[in-house]
Amino acid sequence: MLRAVKMGLTTKAAICSFGGKLFKLSHPSSSTGTDMAVNLYLPPQALKAKTKVPVLFYLSGLTCTPDNCSEKGFFQHGASRRGLAVVYPDTSPRGLNLPGEKDSWDFGEGAGFYVDATRAPFSGGYRMESYISRELPEVLFSDEEYGQYLDATRVAITGHSMGGHGALTLFLKNPGKYASVSAFAPIANPVNCPWGQKAFNGYLQGGTDEGRKHDATELIRGWGGRDVKMLIDVGTGDNFYKQGQLLPENFEKAAREAGVEGLSLRYQEGYDHSYYFMATFSDDHVDHAAKHLGLL
Amino acid sequence: MLRAVKMGLTTKAAICSFGGKLFKLSHPSSSTGTDMAVNLYLPPQALKAKTKVPVLFYLSGLTCTPDNCSEKGFFQHGASRRGLAVVYPDTSPRGLNLPGEKDSWDFGEGAGFYVDATRAPFSGGYRMESYISRELPEVLFSDEEYGQYLDATRVAITGHSMGGHGALTLFLKNPGKYASVSAFAPIANPVNCPWGQKAFNGYLQGGTDEGRKHDATELIRGWGGRDVKMLIDVGTGDNFYKQGQLLPENFEKAAREAGVEGLSLRYQEGYDHSYYFMATFSDDHVDHAAKHLGLL
Repeated sequence: MLRAVKMGLTTKAAICSFGGKLFKLSHPSSSTGTDMAVNLYLPPQALKAKTKVPVLFYLSGLTCTPDNCSEKGFFQHGASRRGLAVVYPDTSPRGLNLPGEKDSWDFGEGAGFYVDATRAPFSGGYRMESYISRELPEVLFSDEEYGQYLDATRVAITGHSMGGHGALTLFLKNPGKYASVSAFAPIANPVNCPWGQKAFNGYLQGGTDEGRKHDATELIRGWGGRDVKMLIDVGTGDNFYKQGQLLPENFEKAAREAGVEGLSLRYQEGYDHSYYFMATFSDDHVDHAAKHLGLL
Repeated sequence: MLRAVKMGLTTKAAICSFGGKLFKLSHPSSSTGTDMAVNLYLPPQALKAKTKVPVLFYLSGLTCTPDNCSEKGFFQHGASRRGLAVVYPDTSPRGLNLPGEKDSWDFGEGAGFYVDATRAPFSGGYRMESYISRELPEVLFSDEEYGQYLDATRVAITGHSMGGHGALTLFLKNPGKYASVSAFAPIANPVNCPWGQKAFNGYLQGGTDEGRKHDATELIRGWGGRDVKMLIDVGTGDNFYKQGQLLPENFEKAAREAGVEGLSLRYQEGYDHSYYFMATFSDDHVDHAAKHLGLL
């Protein structure tokens, strides 16, 4: 017997915010084999004129759902000012009930690390790279209701912490796919930090060695001479930075050695790893994307 | 044997935010008989020049701690732009362990309603009117560390929901104390709504009848002909508004009948009761205060 499966996006809530609307959505994902939650902010420019606007993907950090940054990052403020949509995906599949999936906050649920796992049992559903870079854009851009507002040809990416790692690596692996990239406190050299090593050893058959292809510091070496259109902010009061989880200095050194152009790496005096830090600079990151998306 | 009691403010955390700093503080309160948590945002204008800046008190709604609005209200954005400090008090004493204090989310802990209780057992510690309007300003303005940044002669007040009720009533009861008042979705006529009736019947010996002196719609009648310097926003998609918990129309009618000046009551199409609503309009409320505090 065939069961009718609802494809595409289901709208769970529509919330007015900064002149536009934040939609809480979910959809069945073939990448993960689960329903995936995702938030979409449409600015007033899209809704009022019923026109397509450029799209900024925001990748969250460890433990986060689509709601954390929607509530505390204040990207909607800048997005409404510049006229771009923001997509807030989830950070992993949820509800697979794999062994070990819920044992720690920095691995498994809420910690997909934006890679396609190659090690069982995670290889079945932990396919966040495919989900973020291919499936989710297809679902959004082809959606009957929301596709009409989203310009599939003008897309940028940003992220925080683990999501900063995701944004940098997806940008560097897919030249031309994203108009620009930015990151807040990214895990910039995961093969050399405890978070990244734990994730890669858990998700990848080849461990941290295989992880090199998912490491921004490794990937930037292949971008010699090119313009990376990249803005990175790191707080000097960030305890994870001080503990060596982020390693932006390794990334900066590799970028310098490769001779890349267009990297702006800013150390923000005293700022920590939290949404207070993100919220302070989210307007700058929206403007960075807006500039490369032709809105500024 | 005498025990040394630490008076004044203890700093629990200092967090960089929008160029200034958010301080998470606590202090022993004689009004409540408990330690009270309070957050204080100092804008860059205060910290860099070591000068006193005007102060905006923000009163939170039901269930909230000082952290909710600090994280999700976006007031720091405007406060940093205009150069004013923001004080985020708690919404009740916590830890008194009175009978019935934790039975519901709209009464007792997190729901002090900004009155001095007259009914036992709450009359002992639920004295949020005295705390907010007298003790807390004294503690802040006289503090050795933080007092040097706060201009005790230039103070405004705002609040959300139950905190909107608090802001309106404390302003109306204390002519001249606050330079201006604003409110988001205030409980504007509590004696006529379920939330207010429950609170007043629980906290006040005289119930809702005694509650009239803590009701903005009753208090505004005494302000005939005067300038109330008041901005109120209410979302038309707010379920609590639809359920008759807020009753801004009663307040508006009383203000009109009394012939007060300077009331701006705006209905914001589609907005709900949440921090998404607050964050969208917090810049406006900061500007309203800034104007009356001589900053604009």
